[in-house]
Amino acid sequence: MSDGYKFDPMVRLLKPELEEIIKNKDWKNLKEIISSWQPPEIADLFKEIEPKERVVILRLLPKELQQEVFSYLDSTMQENILRNLSNDDIKSIVEELEPDDRTELFEEMPPDLTRKMINLLSHEERKSALQLLGYPENSVGRLMTPDYIAVQHSWTIEKTIEYIRNYGKDVETINVIYVVDEQWHLLDDISIKKLILAHPSQTIESLMDKSVVFLTANTDQEEAIKIFEKYDLLALPITDEDRHLLGIVTFDDILDAVREEQTEDFTKFSGIQSNDLDLDFITRIKDVPMIQIFKARISWLFALLIMDFVTGGIIQGFQDTIAKYVVLVSFLPVLVDTAGNAGAQSATLVIRALAMGTVQVKDLFSLIVRELFIATLLGLVMGAGISIMGFVRGKSFQIAVVVIVSMFVNVIIGSLIGVLLPFIFTKLKKDPATASTPLITSLADIIGTTIYLGIAYLFLIR
Amino acid sequence: MSDGYKFDPMVRLLKPELEEIIKNKDWKNLKEIISSWQPPEIADLFKEIEPKERVVILRLLPKELQQEVFSYLDSTMQENILRNLSNDDIKSIVEELEPDDRTELFEEMPPDLTRKMINLLSHEERKSALQLLGYPENSVGRLMTPDYIAVQHSWTIEKTIEYIRNYGKDVETINVIYVVDEQWHLLDDISIKKLILAHPSQTIESLMDKSVVFLTANTDQEEAIKIFEKYDLLALPITDEDRHLLGIVTFDDILDAVREEQTEDFTKFSGIQSNDLDLDFITRIKDVPMIQIFKARISWLFALLIMDFVTGGIIQGFQDTIAKYVVLVSFLPVLVDTAGNAGAQSATLVIRALAMGTVQVKDLFSLIVRELFIATLLGLVMGAGISIMGFVRGKSFQIAVVVIVSMFVNVIIGSLIGVLLPFIFTKLKKDPATASTPLITSLADIIGTTIYLGIAYLFLIR
Repeated sequence: MSDGYKFDPMVRLLKPELEEIIKNKDWKNLKEIISSWQPPEIADLFKEIEPKERVVILRLLPKELQQEVFSYLDSTMQENILRNLSNDDIKSIVEELEPDDRTELFEEMPPDLTRKMINLLSHEERKSALQLLGYPENSVGRLMTPDYIAVQHSWTIEKTIEYIRNYGKDVETINVIYVVDEQWHLLDDISIKKLILAHPSQTIESLMDKSVVFLTANTDQEEAIKIFEKYDLLALPITDEDRHLLGIVTFDDILDAVREEQTEDFTKFSGIQSNDLDLDFITRIKDVPMIQIFKARISWLFALLIMDFVTGGIIQGFQDTIAKYVVLVSFLPVLVDTAGNAGAQSATLVIRALAMGTVQVKDLFSLIVRELFIATLLGLVMGAGISIMGFVRGKSFQIAVVVIVSMFVNVIIGSLIGVLLPFIFTKLKKDPATASTPLITSLADIIGTTIYLGIAYLFLIR
Repeated sequence: MSDGYKFDPMVRLLKPELEEIIKNKDWKNLKEIISSWQPPEIADLFKEIEPKERVVILRLLPKELQQEVFSYLDSTMQENILRNLSNDDIKSIVEELEPDDRTELFEEMPPDLTRKMINLLSHEERKSALQLLGYPENSVGRLMTPDYIAVQHSWTIEKTIEYIRNYGKDVETINVIYVVDEQWHLLDDISIKKLILAHPSQTIESLMDKSVVFLTANTDQEEAIKIFEKYDLLALPITDEDRHLLGIVTFDDILDAVREEQTEDFTKFSGIQSNDLDLDFITRIKDVPMIQIFKARISWLFALLIMDFVTGGIIQGFQDTIAKYVVLVSFLPVLVDTAGNAGAQSATLVIRALAMGTVQVKDLFSLIVRELFIATLLGLVMGAGISIMGFVRGKSFQIAVVVIVSMFVNVIIGSLIGVLLPFIFTKLKKDPATASTPLITSLADIIGTTIYLGIAYLFLIR
């Protein structure tokens, strides 16, 4: 038990027996075993078994557990299960889902299935589902749940706790409760800790510090992540433009959102078009149709092919120089690679800093000045590093000078491209991570080749 | 107020007045204004003012707020402030800090300062601080706080709530409480929601489901992140090898850890040695000494310089081929770039999937098979893409064939390197993100150049 958590090992230990039980369709026994498991563990088991068995096992579970397990499954499995359930079963699962999980499900399922599910909902539920779906993609509105505890400032703690006892069962969290006025304007948030530590006869008013952090529903979820980090929140209230409380976003959704944003940045930065994929595709990387991965990868590869033709054209333009000094070619890879690598490094720092909000567009100038210093230092060291090879392989003082000077200039130019590009994309209202390594490499190629062969021409031919 | 959160705009609005007040050293007025702010907002204000003023303003604040604001500052500011405070002030701040924040502070400060602070602590506090510092870096032990609520299974809810009222004030969270036996073995966790919804006369026992997820203190924090995600936890109990409860890790520390791991992966992947930097350096990217950034960047750049010499050597070996067909050089960049780009793409997918636990070492074979299919498809399309240019620029059927075949092979080889490398580093117990874009680019250069010029030699010269 050195690894600590209790259930994974158990799943592993029981596996041969479980397989046996499932093979024998001994559902009664199976039900007994897994009913003590936690929902994420049952979801893990689902990954290992056949689609048909999933439907059977899910139907064995108590209603409440059904929806919990379901919400932990990935979207491919969810779709598969929904397509194999009766309308009644679908209805009971979808109705039980937390509103935010439900919104996610509707987002991810194919339109026909989503339409079917929405039609199965009660009038009330349908209204709220459609409303949540009305917020822009990636907005906090999509993440929020309208199930929270709201109280009036005049209430006593006693009355509040009584209220929580009566209505707390169906809300997503009672760790934070919200104070609203008669028009449902958000006034304050109060932690359950404060509530419990207070005397029952105190009023809510006496606990209020009248400082509450909130966002409007259309705000991008990246903003919510920053707020959670800055204020160490457990839940963030979401309002409309007039500060009417609409719902709350809880930390578990934020953790998911952080991981998604992260995957998006990372893949974009390597030239993968992740918009073509569901955002949770990394969690299903073993099952995502290969053609989807192909599509996400080919667009940038192909686009850069065209940029690389420019580099080829430049090289062709210097054909005579190359024909005369073939040894120059052997330095071409190291020079353009180093420019590209230095650019990728500086772009990474800028992209991360922009994502975490530590750097804004207004800092561009000071960052460029800093980068100039750092890149000069890098260029000097790299120039010194290549000098020996320049002499040894070039067998000529002039060729060595050409190589050293080109290295120095290339590192600086590459680094500056790396700093500039993410800012340019930010200005264009694109994700700064669109300044991908492949893009930087290709740009560095064009500029680096021109500089190198240009310098060679000047020093050696003219 | 469309952007929602209440305080940032206020800070901005008040700024000219605030500057005036600070310039006039009107501390009384200032105290009044900022005492209604939240700690992260005061921390933000600190970024804008002079170091000396920070010390003055911090001392103005009530004791409790002092430590809260302090814990939100970055490490450079913290060090600066600590160096300018009297021992008594240091003592009161450090003693008030949450144990996990204190561990982080001790980790980040220079050894002399850490020693001084530890010596200022009471005997009890010193013991617990040294214990927390005893856990390995990046282990969950370093993140945990020993301040939590633990109760016995025989207690009634009423007694439990009474206990929380008495002792809950100093613990980090009461959202989850822990059930232990007489030997302090962890038995279960119970959410505050369950507690409040239950009848006061019920016992703790009656609320227990005897399923609790926990980790041992030496486990890597990456494991904790995965557990938080999988189980949607608010807090994770940490035990020793014998399941004695040692402390808990709360959600806010996990959110920070996620962001840190993320930055580490991202920077490593671009060939930046982030171990040379504090983990929170991205948050101080504008102030980190430039020499540190230089050091973190030069090591990989320089290491790859040496690999690139190999590429240069290979090119030199094919000098005669190149001299005869100079046009071949113009296709070199596009061929090696595409191999590198394809490799970076596949490496990114594998690294993310490994980081999120969706792929394990055992999946290597099936991923390689998948990659072979995808890469073949990519290779075919890229080969088709380059064919026109091969004919037009090469002006010869043979040269076109060389270019097309090389492109096809290069995309496949590059992609396979991208899949393999992260697994190799995982096997070597290194971070898979060590398979950085620059490393992949350089490897793709060596192999891609050899393939291209080798094929050219076979088709054109022999």
